[in-house]
Amino acid sequence: MSLSSSLQDVQIDDSIQLEQHSSILTIWLNRPESRNAMSLSMVQSLQVVFTAIQDDLSIRAVVLRGKGRHFCAGGDIKDMAAIRMQAASAGNNQAYVDFNRTFGALIEQVDTAPQTVVAVLEGAVLGGGFGLACVSDVAIAHVDAQFGLPETGLGILPAQIAPFVVKRVGLTQARRLALLGSRFKGQMALNVGLVHQIAQDDTDLDAQLAEVTQQIKRCAPKASRATKALLHRTLNEALSPLLDDAARQFADAVASEEGVEGTMAFIQKRHPNWFNGE
Amino acid sequence: MSLSSSLQDVQIDDSIQLEQHSSILTIWLNRPESRNAMSLSMVQSLQVVFTAIQDDLSIRAVVLRGKGRHFCAGGDIKDMAAIRMQAASAGNNQAYVDFNRTFGALIEQVDTAPQTVVAVLEGAVLGGGFGLACVSDVAIAHVDAQFGLPETGLGILPAQIAPFVVKRVGLTQARRLALLGSRFKGQMALNVGLVHQIAQDDTDLDAQLAEVTQQIKRCAPKASRATKALLHRTLNEALSPLLDDAARQFADAVASEEGVEGTMAFIQKRHPNWFNGE
Amino acid sequence: MSLSSSLQDVQIDDSIQLEQHSSILTIWLNRPESRNAMSLSMVQSLQVVFTAIQDDLSIRAVVLRGKGRHFCAGGDIKDMAAIRMQAASAGNNQAYVDFNRTFGALIEQVDTAPQTVVAVLEGAVLGGGFGLACVSDVAIAHVDAQFGLPETGLGILPAQIAPFVVKRVGLTQARRLALLGSRFKGQMALNVGLVHQIAQDDTDLDAQLAEVTQQIKRCAPKASRATKALLHRTLNEALSPLLDDAARQFADAVASEEGVEGTMAFIQKRHPNWFNGE
Repeated sequence: MSLSSSLQDVQIDDSIQLEQHSSILTIWLNRPESRNAMSLSMVQSLQVVFTAIQDDLSIRAVVLRGKGRHFCAGGDIKDMAAIRMQAASAGNNQAYVDFNRTFGALIEQVDTAPQTVVAVLEGAVLGGGFGLACVSDVAIAHVDAQFGLPETGLGILPAQIAPFVVKRVGLTQARRLALLGSRFKGQMALNVGLVHQIAQDDTDLDAQLAEVTQQIKRCAPKASRATKALLHRTLNEALSPLLDDAARQFADAVASEEGVEGTMAFIQKRHPNWFNGE
Repeated sequence: MSLSSSLQDVQIDDSIQLEQHSSILTIWLNRPESRNAMSLSMVQSLQVVFTAIQDDLSIRAVVLRGKGRHFCAGGDIKDMAAIRMQAASAGNNQAYVDFNRTFGALIEQVDTAPQTVVAVLEGAVLGGGFGLACVSDVAIAHVDAQFGLPETGLGILPAQIAPFVVKRVGLTQARRLALLGSRFKGQMALNVGLVHQIAQDDTDLDAQLAEVTQQIKRCAPKASRATKALLHRTLNEALSPLLDDAARQFADAVASEEGVEGTMAFIQKRHPNWFNGE
Repeated sequence: MSLSSSLQDVQIDDSIQLEQHSSILTIWLNRPESRNAMSLSMVQSLQVVFTAIQDDLSIRAVVLRGKGRHFCAGGDIKDMAAIRMQAASAGNNQAYVDFNRTFGALIEQVDTAPQTVVAVLEGAVLGGGFGLACVSDVAIAHVDAQFGLPETGLGILPAQIAPFVVKRVGLTQARRLALLGSRFKGQMALNVGLVHQIAQDDTDLDAQLAEVTQQIKRCAPKASRATKALLHRTLNEALSPLLDDAARQFADAVASEEGVEGTMAFIQKRHPNWFNGE
């Protein structure tokens, strides 16, 4: 129940709440009164947490979900109003640029977080919330969750989100979703490849989440990190040198403590020592 | 009902027909006697139209569809015969090269057209018609539409089409479709991610098209254009600088006439002024 | 029934078996006692065969499948033990690096083999077997086949496989499959885009395979090769120059023996001469 030492001194406000069970850290978006709209302080708190746990091998999965049965309804209107005044007084729109780019930096950070990131998607999954969902390793949606990119209907752009939507569902689906701004639910989110699994009700959602975290515990911590990093590299690097490097990583892993323990456990038909799950 | 001023003087022949209702331009492929086979003059007429409307903000969507309940059956046999003679008399095959490349240039142009492009896919959607379908932002297929890449069965290549098929459905599906040359219908087109929606009959098709164009009208014209361009850039540009530029575009959009109107309309719970529906 | 001349002198051991019917070569993985686990000699035998048939136009499709109703259960434990001793005596892990990289080289080779490659997926399709499935042009799975990437559960990485999994199913699905290490069956393999078709039982599997090889025979040998190469290039090359080159290839194909025969057969409503079916 207690937090890892890496999280003991993190400076966050109550826009998010942390909860840890063994190696699973749950980050609750905690502004239910505004359907967890993404405020600047929420963005910064999330950045602080992901930075703090970067090298913490005791945390193997991060579960992202929202209080009040909503995931996240997008950017916060009040923050936007504050930035409008800031921009007006400065006589330029740099405040908007910074606000927007900061959110993009968060998405980049979550995308490449070394932990396995699980998104639990209920209620509103809109705009920035949609973007955050796009960078999870496992996305479980409630069948009644509401997805959408409302930006173009408001005269603005899904600016920081667009690249992650394309990476997530491909250009074919992304162009329709962004250019129609249409709302859709869990089944369609599954069909277009935005989420991996849908739950029919709250009980089912809890059961699927428990099953997923259990599976994550079965996988070796360092091997999982290395694998996630390797998957990301495949998008940006030439194939042959990447395979050369991957072969060296493979050899290192086989000879590592995890590799030896994994092989032994397999031969002895027992759980490896990193499987600490009930 | 009347065409935008940008279209008043376009030089096109009757291989295509134009029809405009408010901000929606429908381009009819109009060679029903040959299932709208793509002739050189049809290609050129389409290029002329897309070039003419490039900067016309009054046209927000282009609907591509075919007369006679076929979309497009591919390249035109008669044109091919003419080119064969041209090549024979020239003693080289440059005429084929040019003919083929011109079609590719059209596909590139439609892919990146600033308007939201809707393809209505009925009957034959083969070869070049298949390629054209691949670059739409929203593709609605009749459940009985016939899709296929027959090229390899004819001893030739889906040369200009191949890159757009891969971009559309991914390499995994593209290699099977191109290497088997098999025919398939609407449901399979939906399953492989070639189209976004399928209609069970003509009434359903009309209803889905009306709903899609209505949704396009809800989205701001300039924001939609900027978003479409941004989506395309995500495929070719490095992430971080792209997000930097996207943040600047976001700030500009917020401060723009559309951004202000969109926010006001949202707060006042009314339609924004660009929503000219019904 | 007899093998092509290109295969008369190939040096392979009995870890694989070759069988040819007209233009279709079937390569059987033949270590049923270990569910066709991929030994080093099996990897090398496969490389020898694919190299031998590289320029053999009489072989138009390669069917990959496993004896004993398993496709391939991954790397071979005994080979791994031998390599462990080799590494120990050498005092470094180069032997692992080489073993792993060799398998990646095989996957690369099969991915870009000029023939149309059909994978018949039954029983275990795990680890390296999963990777091999990812580079087929057409993948037919038995509904009860067992797919999975067990590496991270063993403390190691799907090192050579990761890039091909991402290419096959996209990053969104790849990250979940690799980071959960979960097992799944044919229907899920179809849903995530790993395979193209699933068979409900053995009879259905045979029928689907027969239909696929028949379709391959309908397609022109040289045009199919050129098309496959073109599809691969679309992932790595800039669009415009690629389309320029594709146009030249198109022109060459039209003027070629295949192009002329294909057009003639189409006009005369007969099978082209490369269709040697039945």
